[in-house]
Amino acid sequence: MQFTVTTPQRLALVDITDQVNAALARSAVKDGLCNLFTTHTTAALVIVENWDPDVAADLLHHLEKLVPRDGDFRHAEGNAQAHILSALYGVSLTVPIRDGQLALGRWQGVMLAEFDGPRERHVLVTTLGALPS
Amino acid sequence: MQFTVTTPQRLALVDITDQVNAALARSAVKDGLCNLFTTHTTAALVIVENWDPDVAADLLHHLEKLVPRDGDFRHAEGNAQAHILSALYGVSLTVPIRDGQLALGRWQGVMLAEFDGPRERHVLVTTLGALPS
Amino acid sequence: MQFTVTTPQRLALVDITDQVNAALARSAVKDGLCNLFTTHTTAALVIVENWDPDVAADLLHHLEKLVPRDGDFRHAEGNAQAHILSALYGVSLTVPIRDGQLALGRWQGVMLAEFDGPRERHVLVTTLGALPS
Repeated sequence: MQFTVTTPQRLALVDITDQVNAALARSAVKDGLCNLFTTHTTAALVIVENWDPDVAADLLHHLEKLVPRDGDFRHAEGNAQAHILSALYGVSLTVPIRDGQLALGRWQGVMLAEFDGPRERHVLVTTLGALPS
Repeated sequence: MQFTVTTPQRLALVDITDQVNAALARSAVKDGLCNLFTTHTTAALVIVENWDPDVAADLLHHLEKLVPRDGDFRHAEGNAQAHILSALYGVSLTVPIRDGQLALGRWQGVMLAEFDGPRERHVLVTTLGALPS
Repeated sequence: MQFTVTTPQRLALVDITDQVNAALARSAVKDGLCNLFTTHTTAALVIVENWDPDVAADLLHHLEKLVPRDGDFRHAEGNAQAHILSALYGVSLTVPIRDGQLALGRWQGVMLAEFDGPRERHVLVTTLGALPS
């Protein structure tokens, strides 16, 4: 399974929780693991509070301090910051499945982190079933 | 399976390796993967050297430099630092199982990283068996 | 399954994509997940663009800014920087398998990140099969 995400601007956190749960509804796995993987080198997948939008805004604002956009970089395309952030946050995320849905905590949302948008991004969804325990 | 961890202070690394291996002892999986997932937005799961306590102390000390507590944040609850660190370190960790135990290296320990304690934290444990290879 | 990687210097990104795909060729899993796990506390596993070598050079250069080598550290062996970077980037990486190979994007490569080399590093490979979907 896979789906695409259209990101709105250069730096963004796009909540994809509902898209993932919709994909899970088509899977036979009710208890196990869901791996999400984005096939790009200038984006990432993260879990962030999705209730107060100020949390996402603070995180995006802080990215520029962790990895300044105009750092002393050699990569000629002007998006070295995005490559470094993608490696730091990671393109793979594994979340437990319980009762056929992501077993997220109350305040957690799964976000595609865009570091070089706007673009269309792909997310692969792989589900594996656990033994009853 | 799940267990809880009581954290002692605002910033802490709590070694949960023994709790995870105790959970694995109740699983039928002897060879495969163990996913650990903490259902919070101000904590994380990391693997750190657990022999010299100075390593954990250095890591905790450096957190304040990566993401200063009193940064220029909008989130009103005063714990924006904790949210940003949780997204950066990640709430999900997948570790191989060999012979029914975590296949950690000699110096590796699994830690719950607390960024907004003291609190009680939940950790979900999901085990999946691999094909014999 | 496991393999070893010899790293060339103190800080390095070594592309291990071909070694992982060679290991997958010996696995019965054609569709599922591949977990990579390095059993050390001063290295990590990351996915980075592997086409323009300037991207890796920029990332390695930026590491010294994220975690300075001569920070104010207590750990006596002189490699506190490496321990902190290992926890930050992470020693575990899970990648989807499609058609018996890593389902990487066109520009993605799997890298062993060395923070305290040169050394010989071990990587465990665990594959799990997905249900047909």
